[in-house]
Amino acid sequence: MHDTSTVEAFLPTRDTMLCISLAARPRNIGTRFHNFLYRQLDLDYLYTAFTTDDVTAAIAGVRALGIRGCSVSMPFKEAVIPLLDAIDDSAAAIESVNTIVNDHGTLIGYNTDYLAIRALLASNQIPASTSVVVRGSGGMAKAVTAALRDSGFSDVTIVARNETTGAALARSYGYHWAGTSDQQPGLLINATPLGMEHQPGLPFTSEQVAAARWVLDVIAMPAKTALLDLADRHGATTIPGTEVIALQAAEQFIRYTGIEPPAELIAAASRFSREEPGQ
Amino acid sequence: MHDTSTVEAFLPTRDTMLCISLAARPRNIGTRFHNFLYRQLDLDYLYTAFTTDDVTAAIAGVRALGIRGCSVSMPFKEAVIPLLDAIDDSAAAIESVNTIVNDHGTLIGYNTDYLAIRALLASNQIPASTSVVVRGSGGMAKAVTAALRDSGFSDVTIVARNETTGAALARSYGYHWAGTSDQQPGLLINATPLGMEHQPGLPFTSEQVAAARWVLDVIAMPAKTALLDLADRHGATTIPGTEVIALQAAEQFIRYTGIEPPAELIAAASRFSREEPGQ
Repeated sequence: MHDTSTVEAFLPTRDTMLCISLAARPRNIGTRFHNFLYRQLDLDYLYTAFTTDDVTAAIAGVRALGIRGCSVSMPFKEAVIPLLDAIDDSAAAIESVNTIVNDHGTLIGYNTDYLAIRALLASNQIPASTSVVVRGSGGMAKAVTAALRDSGFSDVTIVARNETTGAALARSYGYHWAGTSDQQPGLLINATPLGMEHQPGLPFTSEQVAAARWVLDVIAMPAKTALLDLADRHGATTIPGTEVIALQAAEQFIRYTGIEPPAELIAAASRFSREEPGQ
Repeated sequence: MHDTSTVEAFLPTRDTMLCISLAARPRNIGTRFHNFLYRQLDLDYLYTAFTTDDVTAAIAGVRALGIRGCSVSMPFKEAVIPLLDAIDDSAAAIESVNTIVNDHGTLIGYNTDYLAIRALLASNQIPASTSVVVRGSGGMAKAVTAALRDSGFSDVTIVARNETTGAALARSYGYHWAGTSDQQPGLLINATPLGMEHQPGLPFTSEQVAAARWVLDVIAMPAKTALLDLADRHGATTIPGTEVIALQAAEQFIRYTGIEPPAELIAAASRFSREEPGQ
């Protein structure tokens, strides 16, 4: 039998606040990130992952049970919008919610991917006059494109093989679309899965990477993609997907708890979240 | 910063099953009982307490989120019935649900108070021919009375000051009601709050207690009421409320997890559940 003091550790109480995630295929990363910070900061919070085949009832349950926060992943990011009481500008900018805060029964939707990209453009002090090529036309490309527009960038090209989604995305935010491009902008942003473990490859040409001053990759696994590795060797400032994901999770954490953890603790939580136990 | 291995302990994963309680005023006792057993048995389960002002949406949320089990307390025990897919005999016997099991979206309601009383009548080998006086006419008195009927007891008197509820309860199960009684039955059952810390007193006369062979008290705090203390001194077999509450919680645990813990572990969980940390 385990010792009682061991059992007592991190035991929920009747006052424990629950935050959850809602995804078609739940992963461990958010659970590990948030619980790590709750425990390091001795907060009476708990985070667990869920899936659902009835998002309307799931969100009604979040409200009725007083679940404090809810992270929303594919395919629920748009479906939850009509179920909420209000939409923050960050979610309105891309018509996509990845974070719900439950304030005594009032549900407000945010998009912390958008907030993270905006924060990274600012913290890396990338001038709005910089030319940008964004590769991709999915949900993350939309967050990136909206963040660029709202940060004042005017010279932006969306490069996507899919003309329907690519041109629509570019048009929505007042930018150009191209099927391919050998343009050499100051800032390259990869918002495709190209470079993930099972999709090796470079989303840009070597010449583009060599010419760029900043390279942002939204891929978080692996932490160092081939794109970032090459950009590093060419002396560009690289912004990895691990920073995007850590920052967006930190923005959730702040909204759920009202507490802003120090940067080192966020970095530690991010490292912890990407480890699987037993490995 | 806490050590990573400490943080790792009892960390939820994406596969963790959540069980909850739903009560107007959540307490820690169920949370401590169930989590104690989850941890001692290394089960990837977690138990947290909730309240709600919208029981319909809360139960819809239990179903949609795949919350595995839900303990139901006042004032929701009857209100949840129309929200479920099926009612077990234990709940049908008293039209009251204190336990919901979610089997892949199918919600079944049980009453483990009723099951616990039946189990205790059997395990204490109290013959059905024994005369019984039950004091009380609330929810617990109903569970006791139904359990007596379904265990074959025929000589049962319900003693309650409130004639409306007392006579109705007796009539429902084919027994007699009395406003007061000096009858000296073989089995005395207290199903009132008389004897709790803030309601001192004896629910039966000293003569009744002296004459009884079995005395069951549903009060769990304190563990030894004045009634049980007196009964003990007169040599009766006493059945404390702590056994009722431990057994009903164990019946929940078995239905949530499919695992039947050994009696010593249930007893340890029960002791743990009644301790408050820091005391």
